[in-house]
Amino acid sequence: MITLGIDPGIERIGVGFVESKNGKIKLLSHELIKTPSTLTTAQRLALLYEKLTHILNNHKADNVAVEELFFARNTTTAITVAHARGVIMLALQNAGLPIYEYTPLQVKQSLLGYGRADKKQIQYMIKMMLGESAPKQDDVADAVAIAITHINMSRLNEKLKIFS
Amino acid sequence: MITLGIDPGIERIGVGFVESKNGKIKLLSHELIKTPSTLTTAQRLALLYEKLTHILNNHKADNVAVEELFFARNTTTAITVAHARGVIMLALQNAGLPIYEYTPLQVKQSLLGYGRADKKQIQYMIKMMLGESAPKQDDVADAVAIAITHINMSRLNEKLKIFS
Repeated sequence: MITLGIDPGIERIGVGFVESKNGKIKLLSHELIKTPSTLTTAQRLALLYEKLTHILNNHKADNVAVEELFFARNTTTAITVAHARGVIMLALQNAGLPIYEYTPLQVKQSLLGYGRADKKQIQYMIKMMLGESAPKQDDVADAVAIAITHINMSRLNEKLKIFS
Repeated sequence: MITLGIDPGIERIGVGFVESKNGKIKLLSHELIKTPSTLTTAQRLALLYEKLTHILNNHKADNVAVEELFFARNTTTAITVAHARGVIMLALQNAGLPIYEYTPLQVKQSLLGYGRADKKQIQYMIKMMLGESAPKQDDVADAVAIAITHINMSRLNEKLKIFS
C-alpha cells in the first residue's frame, strides 16, 4: 500500500510517497513543489496544478492524505493557502485517488501521542522512523508525517474491525 | 469589450458576461453554477472546474473580474469558499483570460458611490441598469455587479490617461 502525503501551501508544497508493507514504513520518493512569488496568484495556482499532475502521472499511489488547514489568526494568509489547497484537491480528484484529510492535531497525536508537539518534534520523529532516507526539507517532512498518520489510522481501523 | 464577472462560492457560483459598447452596458448571458452538498469537497471542486471550463469554452470574453474574498469571522466557511475560488482562478488562468480582482467595498463604491451599501441595494442598482434583462438570482446579480465594476474602473483609468 502506497500513501501519498501532501503538505499544502502556495510557496512550498511538500509531497512524499510512503510505502507500508508488513508493518514497515519506507519513503519511496519525495518532492518539494515551489511556485515563485514573482508570479500572480493565478499563475502560481496553474503552475502548482501542472507540477502536481505531472508527479501524479509518474508515481503510483493507492490513496492520498492531505493536511487540513487551520488558521486562527491571519485570514489573508489563510485565503491564499486555501486557494492552493483547492487546486491540490482538484488535481487529486482528477487523478482518481481516494482522499483522506487530517488536522495538524491528528498528525501530532498519531506520531507523538499528544497534540501539543511542535513542528521540530514531528520532524525529529520522522528522522527517527526513516533514518538516512528522511527528507531534509521541513515541508517534505510534514508531508511524510501526514502520510504516516494515514497509515497509522488505517492500521488502527483494521485492528478495531477485528475486535468489533 | 466583453467582461466576464464571477461571484465565487462553493454552493452557488454566479457568472455573467457583460458587454460594454459606446458607453452602454448589456448583459449578454448569465449562468448559475451549482454544486450539490451531497458530494465531497473534492468532487464539488472538480464539478465546478468542469462546468466553468465548459462555459469559458463556449462564450467569448476579453477579460474577467472576480470578487476578492473577505472574511472577518467564520474561518471555516472562508477556507471552503477559498478552495473554490482557487479552482476558479485556475480555470480562468488556463483559459488565458486577463484577471482583475475587486473587493466587495470596491464593488459597492463603484456602483453606488459609497461602501456601506448592502447586497439588496446592489441588486436594485443592477435592475435599474439592465431593466428587463436583469438576472433574478442574487449570485448572478453579484457577478454582473463585479463585471460592471471592472468596466467602470477601466473607463476611469482611460479618462485619467487623457488628463495625464
